[in-house]
Amino acid sequence: MTPTTTAAAEARRPATRTRTMKAVVKAKAGPGAEIRDVPVPTAGPGEILLKVKRAGVCGTDLHIWIWDRWAEGRMKPPVTIGHEFVGEVVELGAGVTNVKLGDLVSSESHIICHTCTACRMNLGHVCENTRILGVDVNGGFAEYVAIPAINAWSIPPGIPLEVAAIMEPSGNAVHTAFAGPLSGCNIGVTGCGPIGLFSIGIAKAAGASCVIASDVSPYRLELARRMKADAVIDVSKEDFADRVREITHGRGLDGVLEMSGKPSAMRDGLTALRNGGRLSLLGLPTEPFELDWNRLVIFKGITLQGIVGRRLYETWDQLDQLLRSGRLDLRPSITHTMPMERFEEAIGLLREGKAGKVVLVPWGEAA
Amino acid sequence: MTPTTTAAAEARRPATRTRTMKAVVKAKAGPGAEIRDVPVPTAGPGEILLKVKRAGVCGTDLHIWIWDRWAEGRMKPPVTIGHEFVGEVVELGAGVTNVKLGDLVSSESHIICHTCTACRMNLGHVCENTRILGVDVNGGFAEYVAIPAINAWSIPPGIPLEVAAIMEPSGNAVHTAFAGPLSGCNIGVTGCGPIGLFSIGIAKAAGASCVIASDVSPYRLELARRMKADAVIDVSKEDFADRVREITHGRGLDGVLEMSGKPSAMRDGLTALRNGGRLSLLGLPTEPFELDWNRLVIFKGITLQGIVGRRLYETWDQLDQLLRSGRLDLRPSITHTMPMERFEEAIGLLREGKAGKVVLVPWGEAA
Amino acid sequence: MTPTTTAAAEARRPATRTRTMKAVVKAKAGPGAEIRDVPVPTAGPGEILLKVKRAGVCGTDLHIWIWDRWAEGRMKPPVTIGHEFVGEVVELGAGVTNVKLGDLVSSESHIICHTCTACRMNLGHVCENTRILGVDVNGGFAEYVAIPAINAWSIPPGIPLEVAAIMEPSGNAVHTAFAGPLSGCNIGVTGCGPIGLFSIGIAKAAGASCVIASDVSPYRLELARRMKADAVIDVSKEDFADRVREITHGRGLDGVLEMSGKPSAMRDGLTALRNGGRLSLLGLPTEPFELDWNRLVIFKGITLQGIVGRRLYETWDQLDQLLRSGRLDLRPSITHTMPMERFEEAIGLLREGKAGKVVLVPWGEAA
Amino acid sequence: MTPTTTAAAEARRPATRTRTMKAVVKAKAGPGAEIRDVPVPTAGPGEILLKVKRAGVCGTDLHIWIWDRWAEGRMKPPVTIGHEFVGEVVELGAGVTNVKLGDLVSSESHIICHTCTACRMNLGHVCENTRILGVDVNGGFAEYVAIPAINAWSIPPGIPLEVAAIMEPSGNAVHTAFAGPLSGCNIGVTGCGPIGLFSIGIAKAAGASCVIASDVSPYRLELARRMKADAVIDVSKEDFADRVREITHGRGLDGVLEMSGKPSAMRDGLTALRNGGRLSLLGLPTEPFELDWNRLVIFKGITLQGIVGRRLYETWDQLDQLLRSGRLDLRPSITHTMPMERFEEAIGLLREGKAGKVVLVPWGEAA
Repeated sequence: MTPTTTAAAEARRPATRTRTMKAVVKAKAGPGAEIRDVPVPTAGPGEILLKVKRAGVCGTDLHIWIWDRWAEGRMKPPVTIGHEFVGEVVELGAGVTNVKLGDLVSSESHIICHTCTACRMNLGHVCENTRILGVDVNGGFAEYVAIPAINAWSIPPGIPLEVAAIMEPSGNAVHTAFAGPLSGCNIGVTGCGPIGLFSIGIAKAAGASCVIASDVSPYRLELARRMKADAVIDVSKEDFADRVREITHGRGLDGVLEMSGKPSAMRDGLTALRNGGRLSLLGLPTEPFELDWNRLVIFKGITLQGIVGRRLYETWDQLDQLLRSGRLDLRPSITHTMPMERFEEAIGLLREGKAGKVVLVPWGEAA
Repeated sequence: MTPTTTAAAEARRPATRTRTMKAVVKAKAGPGAEIRDVPVPTAGPGEILLKVKRAGVCGTDLHIWIWDRWAEGRMKPPVTIGHEFVGEVVELGAGVTNVKLGDLVSSESHIICHTCTACRMNLGHVCENTRILGVDVNGGFAEYVAIPAINAWSIPPGIPLEVAAIMEPSGNAVHTAFAGPLSGCNIGVTGCGPIGLFSIGIAKAAGASCVIASDVSPYRLELARRMKADAVIDVSKEDFADRVREITHGRGLDGVLEMSGKPSAMRDGLTALRNGGRLSLLGLPTEPFELDWNRLVIFKGITLQGIVGRRLYETWDQLDQLLRSGRLDLRPSITHTMPMERFEEAIGLLREGKAGKVVLVPWGEAA
Repeated sequence: MTPTTTAAAEARRPATRTRTMKAVVKAKAGPGAEIRDVPVPTAGPGEILLKVKRAGVCGTDLHIWIWDRWAEGRMKPPVTIGHEFVGEVVELGAGVTNVKLGDLVSSESHIICHTCTACRMNLGHVCENTRILGVDVNGGFAEYVAIPAINAWSIPPGIPLEVAAIMEPSGNAVHTAFAGPLSGCNIGVTGCGPIGLFSIGIAKAAGASCVIASDVSPYRLELARRMKADAVIDVSKEDFADRVREITHGRGLDGVLEMSGKPSAMRDGLTALRNGGRLSLLGLPTEPFELDWNRLVIFKGITLQGIVGRRLYETWDQLDQLLRSGRLDLRPSITHTMPMERFEEAIGLLREGKAGKVVLVPWGEAA
Repeated sequence: MTPTTTAAAEARRPATRTRTMKAVVKAKAGPGAEIRDVPVPTAGPGEILLKVKRAGVCGTDLHIWIWDRWAEGRMKPPVTIGHEFVGEVVELGAGVTNVKLGDLVSSESHIICHTCTACRMNLGHVCENTRILGVDVNGGFAEYVAIPAINAWSIPPGIPLEVAAIMEPSGNAVHTAFAGPLSGCNIGVTGCGPIGLFSIGIAKAAGASCVIASDVSPYRLELARRMKADAVIDVSKEDFADRVREITHGRGLDGVLEMSGKPSAMRDGLTALRNGGRLSLLGLPTEPFELDWNRLVIFKGITLQGIVGRRLYETWDQLDQLLRSGRLDLRPSITHTMPMERFEEAIGLLREGKAGKVVLVPWGEAA
């Protein structure tokens, strides 16, 4: 073995291997999560190890914390949670060539099989065998996380770390928005949680002529305004479709991005669509609900799209381009940045609806 | 005025004007319809007068006969019913140049406004001001009918009159089928009424690799077989999704054409779709119904499409091409041809589910 | 006849009928055009009469003036020229319902047949029998012009007359730009004549991340800057593809809008495209030219699109939405507004390349 | 190590490793190729080793044999050639889970980087760093070949080995055909070499209403007929566009699959297209050539598509579905099956235009 090779080998295997680290762990079935010392993972073949710089808290993390039916049916504790994060590449597994040590990368959270029918049709976002970081395998609410190298997206130059940390959920918003025409369109966003907020900025940056957002929370509607919605509608006080008709001079919406999972929001959106419009569904309803199919879908010639995850990796490319252009600023949606140590507090803010996006700073990282 | 001009004028204004004719008329609010003597219509500017050769009976005609809530809310009797027909051009209104006397033409049933937002976006099939022949204006269950010249489609050479008569409802099936990929696809057809039957033949002619049809009626499933379905499933006896999985070796369906309006059929279809597939909805449910959106639509990345009418006039062109090629034979779906005089009997067959498509022969036309 | 009806009838038949008017007429084969007194046209069935408010001068008008081979092969003088204009509706022909007296409307210049294969496939912009206002039938460089009512587009509120006058050529730019993805894309515009200039503003308003324009004229490149191009390239001094690579950090262009008709511009554009990109061709080459198909098109998986006219009427709707939103400002492209009387001077400016868009003010209209 | 593990390990590492094998090797710069004894390759991480069962001879192999400018510029001998083949999986590299020992698989010939812009946009077929089996790395004209496991496509049940061997070039034809609408369309195929022949069968199986093929060789036109072309045109004797107009009753072609690389064929195809049609270019011209852009592309609103390789892996899935359905029979295009030992003879047949597709049987495989 030549000295050069030895040096390279050392560069690829830093001292981190033997240490332990802090992590937010779903330790057992039932509500809650705890901060624990766990071994630092290593980068297997085709994987990379990241030193986590920032991480975003997602509604899914709240579901996991609460231990709802979905979490109970899917997770096998103990698992380090967290699937939205940016980190620095500190270790390269065998065969990795697409990133190099020191790169800052954001992470796609779905580890796909590449071989099922969906994957073979370039529909990896609906891979039948997908495993999710922070749900099915250890995630990024930790000092270090190992991910497949192919899941790494080098962050565009000049992007702040807290924005890089939330490229994954912003990608959900991009996927939903880009599922239909945007340029010159009137777009409705029903539900102004973080992904709804992102999608307002995304639709505007992508050329929508008019973006109309709805929610029942004045706090969230104020965030929607900061994300540059052309109009906001408090649906606890006003009728969505009536107001849309007024704002759009009778035309209605060309597209609706449904981010709330609320039956009433979906019906409002369908009512406010022009004939031939599209409604893209990202929000997850808590239970089945009914629809007047004839009046709201069939007679109007509406297209409904179920949206999940991100297109691998067109969506990342689209988001990258929007961020690079400077036309998309996601920062107004980030209301809190706090140490990862205070994870419970972040969960509390989400439960109470007192936050837009919350970003966590891992142990040892300067805010 | 020169002799030539006079001759032409006479050709355009035949003696039919002054006569009366037989017609099937929805004479008043309430169940039923009656055969009456009514004036022969004339071709106004931009219109043509047709001598009706054959007409198809539609489920909508049954709704009108029964006088259900939809009919009650929409129709203003008296109206001559019938919106599926083929006829010979016997009079040309002012300014008509696209057809000539003696042409055999099939008729689009929607008279659109050309000026609403939908029309201006080439979405005339969902025109906000559409009027339907045989519903809103006098239709084709009669000896003569006047239609806008632009609604006339010259029938392809060699097409039998009874097939030409049902190009309108076959167009519904084309519109539904062509709303997504067909070539090389596994396509499910849920519901084997006439439009479901047409869509089986259409999907096959359009290159589907495998067409699987479902219904609960052995009579209709037998017609589905005659239309060349690769497999038929009696959903009163077998589970649709299980059988589809078996037939498609685990892949599932790429697309579903929902023709029944049944909630169970829609759920079956969604379950049997592969991830990323599409379900096109033409069947009209009798009332709102619920769906497990997360499991059946969102997590699978499904696209749902509300389908109404025909694209004006791409759908007609597609059907024309399929018929011309000889690859599409709609005749096995036509189970009855009878004099228009026996309209009540046709309605009875439909009510009892004892017919595929029923074609009527007007007074004075040889069967 | 009731007084009301009489009044309405009078409103529809104003005194204009009997007068003559001034018009710019291509009077005979050969170079030039002249201002003449001609009869005021009337609105036939389905037509409307406009009092022209503003008109745009197009490169086509220059070809007609010069009497090049195309003009010689197509036109049959005498013809009133001018196909870009806005006017007030002053007379309604029989059966017209989509506009009313006093409306301000811009005009689509293609009068299509509605019955050829292209028209029947919703491809009216490539109608096989199209007739063009100001080329095949009398146009709008006049005090009055008659057009089919369906060709009228009611101008969005708040749009200045000089902008309304150039919706037709701006539509060419919209058609070209919207022929492929724009949102988040790097778009090249090769050629900064008026339509190139429009397309810069349109691509930006429609959400392009970066718009790079090229030309050899410093005057035009300065106009490109005013239309908010992110970068401009003087291809007489710099290599287009090299500069694009630099500006886009190696990615290249997602789409090129070719507006010059120059072989070198097309090759530049193809070279600068990323693999899988699209090049949309609106500029008309003066003669056939060769291409290295393998290297520039096939191996890169490029899509080339021939673009002509505007989609009827989706393109108008898209432009309307862009203008309404306030995101598109076309005014910096209009460098001259002058009396129609000075038509020859406008032609001179175009010949010398000393103008962006030139707008004419008809006789009797205040500038 | 447990006995089970040992057995599994043995199964994965058969005795083949140490042996040598016969292979067709491009041994040095210059014309020709030779049969040599070379080491049997091994399956590295993520790779599989195949025992080759059948292989197809491609025009590219002829270019390599002749050592034309392209070959000279790209290849670095010695390289085992051959990029169309089917084989049995006899060794699994580390981490391979998508296939198992004993599987019969066909091979995608492009080894892509997964990380360039094109790959990240799901355009791997135009990967900027692609390496081709049998060109850049050792290929399949040999007893064994190692390929990336992800490049393996399990062949559909019931498919003959000689057909499985040519799924790669058939995929080119599928990619070209599926680049635009096929169902109910009139499709032209210009050039009846093997890929042209495949595309005839593919377009028919995919639902084209009418497929019209052209060539100058009576031998190839006869093969076109056997592939079920609806009409064939000998362009040395008849005008393509005139005949197409006649056959299609004036409509023209909806799409053209250009398989010849001949300038005249491309011009013929463009002339025969209806307005708004598409021409998909797979054939490689030997040198740049000119086009009358205005008349053939722009005024007609034509879309031109450069096609290369196969969509990874949608194209394979589409071909798989066509083959499974039984609607596509590629066998009439295979005119010769011969021992790989007689490779020179196969090259001779191709040079003289005396073959459709030629399939080779490796040493030790029964024909």
